[in-house]
Amino acid sequence: MKSRFTTLQCVREKRPLIHSITNCVTVHFCADVLLAAGASPMMTDDPREAAEATQLADALHLNIGTLNDSSIHAMLVAGNAAKKKHIPIVFDPVGAGATRLRTDAAQEIISHCTPDVVKGNLAEMLFLAGESGIVSRGVDAGKISLTRNAAADVLKKFARDHHCIVIATGKDDFVTDGKRVAIVHNGTPVLEKVTGTGCALGVLCAAMATAGELFSAQLDAVLAMGIAGEIALSKISGDDDCGSFKVKLLDAIGNLTDDVVRSRGKYEFLA
Amino acid sequence: MKSRFTTLQCVREKRPLIHSITNCVTVHFCADVLLAAGASPMMTDDPREAAEATQLADALHLNIGTLNDSSIHAMLVAGNAAKKKHIPIVFDPVGAGATRLRTDAAQEIISHCTPDVVKGNLAEMLFLAGESGIVSRGVDAGKISLTRNAAADVLKKFARDHHCIVIATGKDDFVTDGKRVAIVHNGTPVLEKVTGTGCALGVLCAAMATAGELFSAQLDAVLAMGIAGEIALSKISGDDDCGSFKVKLLDAIGNLTDDVVRSRGKYEFLA
Amino acid sequence: MKSRFTTLQCVREKRPLIHSITNCVTVHFCADVLLAAGASPMMTDDPREAAEATQLADALHLNIGTLNDSSIHAMLVAGNAAKKKHIPIVFDPVGAGATRLRTDAAQEIISHCTPDVVKGNLAEMLFLAGESGIVSRGVDAGKISLTRNAAADVLKKFARDHHCIVIATGKDDFVTDGKRVAIVHNGTPVLEKVTGTGCALGVLCAAMATAGELFSAQLDAVLAMGIAGEIALSKISGDDDCGSFKVKLLDAIGNLTDDVVRSRGKYEFLA
Repeated sequence: MKSRFTTLQCVREKRPLIHSITNCVTVHFCADVLLAAGASPMMTDDPREAAEATQLADALHLNIGTLNDSSIHAMLVAGNAAKKKHIPIVFDPVGAGATRLRTDAAQEIISHCTPDVVKGNLAEMLFLAGESGIVSRGVDAGKISLTRNAAADVLKKFARDHHCIVIATGKDDFVTDGKRVAIVHNGTPVLEKVTGTGCALGVLCAAMATAGELFSAQLDAVLAMGIAGEIALSKISGDDDCGSFKVKLLDAIGNLTDDVVRSRGKYEFLA
Repeated sequence: MKSRFTTLQCVREKRPLIHSITNCVTVHFCADVLLAAGASPMMTDDPREAAEATQLADALHLNIGTLNDSSIHAMLVAGNAAKKKHIPIVFDPVGAGATRLRTDAAQEIISHCTPDVVKGNLAEMLFLAGESGIVSRGVDAGKISLTRNAAADVLKKFARDHHCIVIATGKDDFVTDGKRVAIVHNGTPVLEKVTGTGCALGVLCAAMATAGELFSAQLDAVLAMGIAGEIALSKISGDDDCGSFKVKLLDAIGNLTDDVVRSRGKYEFLA
Repeated sequence: MKSRFTTLQCVREKRPLIHSITNCVTVHFCADVLLAAGASPMMTDDPREAAEATQLADALHLNIGTLNDSSIHAMLVAGNAAKKKHIPIVFDPVGAGATRLRTDAAQEIISHCTPDVVKGNLAEMLFLAGESGIVSRGVDAGKISLTRNAAADVLKKFARDHHCIVIATGKDDFVTDGKRVAIVHNGTPVLEKVTGTGCALGVLCAAMATAGELFSAQLDAVLAMGIAGEIALSKISGDDDCGSFKVKLLDAIGNLTDDVVRSRGKYEFLA
């Protein structure tokens, strides 16, 4: 059996084609992150070519950071094609809970496309899991009053109900398949000072979903983004700030190896 | 009374949510600038969620750098919501005067949304003020034959007629509330060698419009962008050019403080 | 007669306005590349202003990296306006052959707009030339089994049939007007590790199409992008990777001169 620490190497050897239907804010950065990770991006959102594009792809990435009728339609069409081709679908329900349109779109995509991975921030994921009292604030996480164990239980149930891996990001990140819950401690708050790092984790999840056992690969994706953030932070100094950090983040993703993920990864499994 | 030199500190403490309906060219950079300044971006342009998004926000930013029926509709809907919630509206009429579509959209947004701040380059602002003989050249400023005092008079009248702050950028920048006219001398021509610095000033104006007295806050926004440009320029050298400058510009915005704005700001009031 | 090595100088003196209807993934980077090269970008894709925008412009750039009914319509309208104004049209048929929508759009634009330059990767160009057996893989080049001379013959015929310059990029780049075929050896594989360098070559071609004899100017554009990539690569080291490379690439384009293109350009004409 393949060791779980070969995910990045697999991506770089296979050079998977990722069909991404995503928002116009971070689409360029997501494409750069895919290339840095060794994957190949294909960004198209016209419903008329969504199925054909997905048929060429090794994984499908859906993100509702910005959305309209046409792009939602394209996501549903692409989801069908991905299921027929049996390639993984990663869904990022950006802003679910913030507006009715996003909540409805997220729920429709989850029920129609049955994604293999749903990755959001903790507020979005708890909202989608029906946890009341979570108020989303724009596309960033709102205030959350749940304990870590209570949140984990909600996320596990969502993962079981929807037969998917759930990733919920925040100060610590949760990765669960409904049974196991890994808590990732890597990362830096600076990752939230630049646009698109959450979206970038989503495309990284899609690339890594093509490389090995799904839960391990998704855990590796979360570790990889957190570690890349830590490395980027260590490369800047003095008057550097978010501009330089973003450049170094892409550099760090481009240079990342499975060995580094193994040696720097900090995570635990909840009992 | 609060000193006028706490605008950036206010933004960083309040972390205002800025709903921005803007163009697809510079949207990512604008989001990065908002984060660097301490604000939180929410970029959505579907009319169906425009009102809800604005209801969550602390300020509304509208920019017609690219536009279509749907985004214009979203801007009008969001403008209504912003007026109901009494949050500031900053409008950037990119390319007004260059095409009929832009001129019509700009005039409709100004009359319908009654923005608190209208920020354009000098050619756009003079065109909107009905000054004949100004020919816009694409989205950049065309040649302008008015004297500084004559231009100031036109801008002041526009500000009075529309009950707004007017910002007109160029070699020097004008900020007027219809009575006072401040001329800002900060900045560097290199700011025009990279895409999106004009749009970035617009989102900075929106973030700062949530922090203190409006005229002072808008003057601070113009000073801040000019000074950040000067700092960025001082950080590059030798073979560096627009790529490095843009990175350093984000760094400079991220590191900027009210003290630096106070000590480096160069402006005068026209008599 | 003007020496052929003044293309960049011409662009920087003339500051041509380039109307670009392009994809949402790389539009920001393309605008930055145009500014770095000394041109002025105007990115608009609403059909209602397409003709007016083109009438202001010195060249038209069309790219179908992402596309929809509205943008295709805008491209056809802009193409008409460009032909009436006798300004050059550069077309980048991104992903032609990958999906039916792209293939149809590419063929419609070529037949309707009769572009002066068609620039794609080798797979796209061979596909459009009717060469069977070429399978496109997303928006990147697929595997190609033709010999260099056979490929050159196909491209020459396409150039003659469509009265245009053909640029086909790959390990080596082809530039042909149907008679001459230049093969460019500059560049680095790192250019393919960052998003948008292919699109950026397209806008560079459009900017340079306004400066001097078309075949020479297009050859200069291809040389310029390859050389800028080489220079960018020489400026990064150690832990730098795609993030830093992209910054240095913009710096290199901003600093590039005709002298550098002349001294570093490596190309040959096929017999």
